[in-house]
Amino acid sequence: MAGNTIGSMFRVTTWGESHGKALGAIVDGCPAGLDLDESDLQEDLDRRKPSPSVSSTARNERDSVEILSGVFEGKTTGTPISMIIYNVDADSSSYDALKDVFRPGQGDITYLQKYGIRDWRGGGRASGRETAARVAAGAIASKLLAQSGMEVIAYTQAIGSIEIDRSRMTDPKSLRNVVRVNSLFCPDAQAAKAMEENIADVRNQGDSLGGVVEIIVNHCPAGLGEPIFDKMDADLAKALMSIGSVKAVEIGDGVAMSGSRGSQANDQMDKKGYLTNHAGGILAGITNGQQIVLRAYCKPIPSIAKPQRTIDSRGKEHRIEIRGRHDICVLPRIVPVCEAMVSIVLADHLLRQKAINE
Amino acid sequence: MAGNTIGSMFRVTTWGESHGKALGAIVDGCPAGLDLDESDLQEDLDRRKPSPSVSSTARNERDSVEILSGVFEGKTTGTPISMIIYNVDADSSSYDALKDVFRPGQGDITYLQKYGIRDWRGGGRASGRETAARVAAGAIASKLLAQSGMEVIAYTQAIGSIEIDRSRMTDPKSLRNVVRVNSLFCPDAQAAKAMEENIADVRNQGDSLGGVVEIIVNHCPAGLGEPIFDKMDADLAKALMSIGSVKAVEIGDGVAMSGSRGSQANDQMDKKGYLTNHAGGILAGITNGQQIVLRAYCKPIPSIAKPQRTIDSRGKEHRIEIRGRHDICVLPRIVPVCEAMVSIVLADHLLRQKAINE
Amino acid sequence: MAGNTIGSMFRVTTWGESHGKALGAIVDGCPAGLDLDESDLQEDLDRRKPSPSVSSTARNERDSVEILSGVFEGKTTGTPISMIIYNVDADSSSYDALKDVFRPGQGDITYLQKYGIRDWRGGGRASGRETAARVAAGAIASKLLAQSGMEVIAYTQAIGSIEIDRSRMTDPKSLRNVVRVNSLFCPDAQAAKAMEENIADVRNQGDSLGGVVEIIVNHCPAGLGEPIFDKMDADLAKALMSIGSVKAVEIGDGVAMSGSRGSQANDQMDKKGYLTNHAGGILAGITNGQQIVLRAYCKPIPSIAKPQRTIDSRGKEHRIEIRGRHDICVLPRIVPVCEAMVSIVLADHLLRQKAINE
Amino acid sequence: MAGNTIGSMFRVTTWGESHGKALGAIVDGCPAGLDLDESDLQEDLDRRKPSPSVSSTARNERDSVEILSGVFEGKTTGTPISMIIYNVDADSSSYDALKDVFRPGQGDITYLQKYGIRDWRGGGRASGRETAARVAAGAIASKLLAQSGMEVIAYTQAIGSIEIDRSRMTDPKSLRNVVRVNSLFCPDAQAAKAMEENIADVRNQGDSLGGVVEIIVNHCPAGLGEPIFDKMDADLAKALMSIGSVKAVEIGDGVAMSGSRGSQANDQMDKKGYLTNHAGGILAGITNGQQIVLRAYCKPIPSIAKPQRTIDSRGKEHRIEIRGRHDICVLPRIVPVCEAMVSIVLADHLLRQKAINE
Repeated sequence: MAGNTIGSMFRVTTWGESHGKALGAIVDGCPAGLDLDESDLQEDLDRRKPSPSVSSTARNERDSVEILSGVFEGKTTGTPISMIIYNVDADSSSYDALKDVFRPGQGDITYLQKYGIRDWRGGGRASGRETAARVAAGAIASKLLAQSGMEVIAYTQAIGSIEIDRSRMTDPKSLRNVVRVNSLFCPDAQAAKAMEENIADVRNQGDSLGGVVEIIVNHCPAGLGEPIFDKMDADLAKALMSIGSVKAVEIGDGVAMSGSRGSQANDQMDKKGYLTNHAGGILAGITNGQQIVLRAYCKPIPSIAKPQRTIDSRGKEHRIEIRGRHDICVLPRIVPVCEAMVSIVLADHLLRQKAINE
Repeated sequence: MAGNTIGSMFRVTTWGESHGKALGAIVDGCPAGLDLDESDLQEDLDRRKPSPSVSSTARNERDSVEILSGVFEGKTTGTPISMIIYNVDADSSSYDALKDVFRPGQGDITYLQKYGIRDWRGGGRASGRETAARVAAGAIASKLLAQSGMEVIAYTQAIGSIEIDRSRMTDPKSLRNVVRVNSLFCPDAQAAKAMEENIADVRNQGDSLGGVVEIIVNHCPAGLGEPIFDKMDADLAKALMSIGSVKAVEIGDGVAMSGSRGSQANDQMDKKGYLTNHAGGILAGITNGQQIVLRAYCKPIPSIAKPQRTIDSRGKEHRIEIRGRHDICVLPRIVPVCEAMVSIVLADHLLRQKAINE
Repeated sequence: MAGNTIGSMFRVTTWGESHGKALGAIVDGCPAGLDLDESDLQEDLDRRKPSPSVSSTARNERDSVEILSGVFEGKTTGTPISMIIYNVDADSSSYDALKDVFRPGQGDITYLQKYGIRDWRGGGRASGRETAARVAAGAIASKLLAQSGMEVIAYTQAIGSIEIDRSRMTDPKSLRNVVRVNSLFCPDAQAAKAMEENIADVRNQGDSLGGVVEIIVNHCPAGLGEPIFDKMDADLAKALMSIGSVKAVEIGDGVAMSGSRGSQANDQMDKKGYLTNHAGGILAGITNGQQIVLRAYCKPIPSIAKPQRTIDSRGKEHRIEIRGRHDICVLPRIVPVCEAMVSIVLADHLLRQKAINE
Repeated sequence: MAGNTIGSMFRVTTWGESHGKALGAIVDGCPAGLDLDESDLQEDLDRRKPSPSVSSTARNERDSVEILSGVFEGKTTGTPISMIIYNVDADSSSYDALKDVFRPGQGDITYLQKYGIRDWRGGGRASGRETAARVAAGAIASKLLAQSGMEVIAYTQAIGSIEIDRSRMTDPKSLRNVVRVNSLFCPDAQAAKAMEENIADVRNQGDSLGGVVEIIVNHCPAGLGEPIFDKMDADLAKALMSIGSVKAVEIGDGVAMSGSRGSQANDQMDKKGYLTNHAGGILAGITNGQQIVLRAYCKPIPSIAKPQRTIDSRGKEHRIEIRGRHDICVLPRIVPVCEAMVSIVLADHLLRQKAINE
């Protein structure tokens, strides 16, 4: 089974290459009667655009999304929603030189190993550009969740070694708005400033940065998630790890808990509810009604100007300096992508739970 | 879709409750002609048994596995392999008192929230006992991988705050054997000793510990993993996160890479191969032929003797002290479970790749 | 993907060989809170037992089913329901002679062609005995449907060239009871008598018979079925055709409609409802609230005493006369199997529709 | 799970409404390296166009297909192949009057019952126009099968009560070419002439006709099909029954065999092979290397000029005469659709078998 579909009841399939004609997504299983138009999707897509503080000479894509099916007179009809985003500013010429050379940290070599052929233009299917289709699909999921009062918010927790200070973090009520206007989607203005300076430095050095995205889900009902293998945390981990740059996923205080004791890690309860939320809102793979908290650890952008050693498809050694239109850090662009993936998983489990619940 | 099945070509379904009649697994999709008998499975199941250093008065289960179908004259036939493990030492009496009380950190409350009913005996379906069925299925996956020369080895990297020292770690060639005989499945004898002491201390304090399992895969061919959503790392993350105690999953140097730079994180190549392996053997979701390296971060066992605050199903507050047959730490018992889950995912992707590869 | 599972929300997996230790089924996705005990399943299994009028020296299997998981205190818990039926009267000795010889009309040759190995004892996995597991699973589906007021009734429409006369057919209200007591599950007593005589004749000639099962569904709500590919009729056709003997499936007046005109085939409506039901209760793949009507055309039992030409696995020619424990006609034993398969598909679509319906 | 996807390894998803912007299909799982360009698809799409002898004032759609992804330099890359067909001649005005009225025999009422909303323009998603997307996907499957020497040929066996005479049928070697040029895709020229006359008559009477499509598969290797539920015949039945007009599916001599005896129905063998092919090339759900033979029974086109009784969405009674752009018979246009569906199922099973076969 090829892997371009995620979800069982709310299913998302994406297609398209970085320098092909277009990208797109199909959402199959969205219930009928949901208000939907293109502007709902466009708003999220615009948030995925290159940020001036992070990108240098970025490719100029409007990422204008068009709905081709599944919506009639402003409402979903229950049939597949097909969305398309045409590529308008693809310039493959800068990739000509890299046609046979494997860029370190990229899928160039593994796509060739897997398929015996690869579309070398702009990373082909492995390009981060594919995530535009996810964001479009995620916007539909997000509208569906909103109907049930749920809200998914992702933001920058760290870029390079600079982390947000939670004591300075914007208050929960305004969080959603704050992290949407801020150019780094960062809820701590002081940290954001330091991050911008760091990015500028690193750009001058021809290098790149990684970071951490934190995602929270408010007002998620208890009971979502399907033991044993489709636990809510398992499906969220898969969804986030399916984003190219993400190399670790953490639920609640996952990493810290591994070094702690049961008396510290357990979330005790009194009649008013849980006293803590180390579990990140998920117990035994099922949501418990608390806020869901997740973290996606992203590796640095692999395309850097600094010289690197590599080989080409005939095994010949090269030193390459990758110039052209690249970001310095995958954050903040990846933030709405994480939000989309979490929304898709939640929408799927919301429908799955409805099926078995009286 | 209920979530008791994992895999698309090599599919594993588990069933059974902690104090029900039996547990079991079905493996569907195992190719015909593989040599298989019950002793192949039993060996791995025996490794999952309570370790004297970690468990106190553990339930005494032989975990004797029986193959009911799919094997004829010592070979798999291509039809579903059904395996059963009868529960022989279930004692539900100690759970009577906990029938209506939610144990902190356990799925008691969320199963009830999800299903409106729960089998309260020994954690029911949410019990770690379910993993015995995974280990039986994983042993079949492991035999299939061995046919292609692959080997999955899991071991204890940390218990509580005590980590192994990689400079003291046993050499790669003997690793598999060393971590199998060692009572904590720990490749650093000195750390193992400290871990045992720590476990003893914590037991005396009526508390419990978490830890980290590291899993490596040797000789995995390049090309396994299905972009976009069924990336190898995404499927591995899901599989590990589906284990009850696991709350974070890391591929290669995932967490550390988020704080590093591209020039440090990229694995450069020369004609002899990769110079480093920060990516943990997976690039763009596809294996690259290097060693796969993964880490599963496990929370402490939630059942502790120390008093905890909680409520019952009517909202009444309680202070509970959980005694009875519990481990102090989920490691080392979870180590073969992680090995099983990784083996299942790899076997699945091995078959998926064969389907599209000439 | 191996094919031993059917359904997406209400999923049934079967396993087991004719002469293996046991057979079984897992039902995953059954909602929690359904009253269920073994006697519910046993009743349907007993209807699948050999009928004295059709079988000669049938294998004597009690087909005693045991529930191993998923039920607690008489109610389903939402976790997988594992059912097992031990084989107690398997006698492989009569198959020794057929070990290498391909019985005409059986899967002996194709299983070997597919898997390179086969369990030759009693047909192995291809045996009609596998359908016992389907009937057990179908009984659960049937209970779920009954909660929504639905009822599935299958009966014998034809055996060999003898068909029921609809004018003599028992009245709808007593249909369910009548076809359950009758030894051929035939709703026309006169036809049943002729069928029994025919069966006796054919047995004396060392030959066998085919027949037609008709299945109706009462009180099915409108709206079930998922365009485009998972249309209700498409999923029903697959489910029925997955029964070994079934070689054609018809919805409503399917075959006759192909030779008719639109003015005859369309089901017109007035305010009281549909004037006819040529469509068999399904329009554009979605149930319309009318009675669902289906037909499964079954080939004759391939194992016959009359001499037949065949070859063995080395290509050597043989003439074989198959004696031993065989039925003369797959009806009536297949009738409850058809009922089970239709129930499973409907239960699945009932849950699927709940997921998307407010 | 919504039902717009078919297949597990070779997966086809279709989307689009009759009068929406466009229709399309995604093929996911096609192996890399297959030669493919748009003309390969266009040829099959052209065969699905209205035939002058059957259609009156048909909608004039070029059905021009564009490949948007998954093909690079003339070869498939292993990534999803997205295809789009823009609607250019949709005229919804004639449907205005039918906005609230349920056309007999159409999905108007059931789509509303299922979703609570419907796109009434031209039948929306339930329109036969959706099958254009299937044909495009089927053309890719067909190319994949051709690589393994397989060939799928569908043709008209009957229109209304006029059947082909097999003694007059064109010889096997030229069959593929003959049925492609012939305007009714009918392999018996004399029957074709009678069919054309019949169609003209029926058109004058404001009525419509059904018919039967026969599909054969040459050179299919033995061993394809996955017991138990995904038997080859089960999956083929589902695929054909998922076409709107098809109401019965038959494998080999399925209907006739139900009235026959084992000694007649079994396909005996000698060392040169099978002596007959009543089973239609499939034994126990697995292909046996003989020619696969299938039949799809199609109901008459429901849209007819003759007055019919019906109701509208408020339950008010109407008499309607449906004029506009309709065919008289779903054959021959459905012939390439049947060919496509059979090709898709075979391609899927070909890959599934490769996965488990050494």
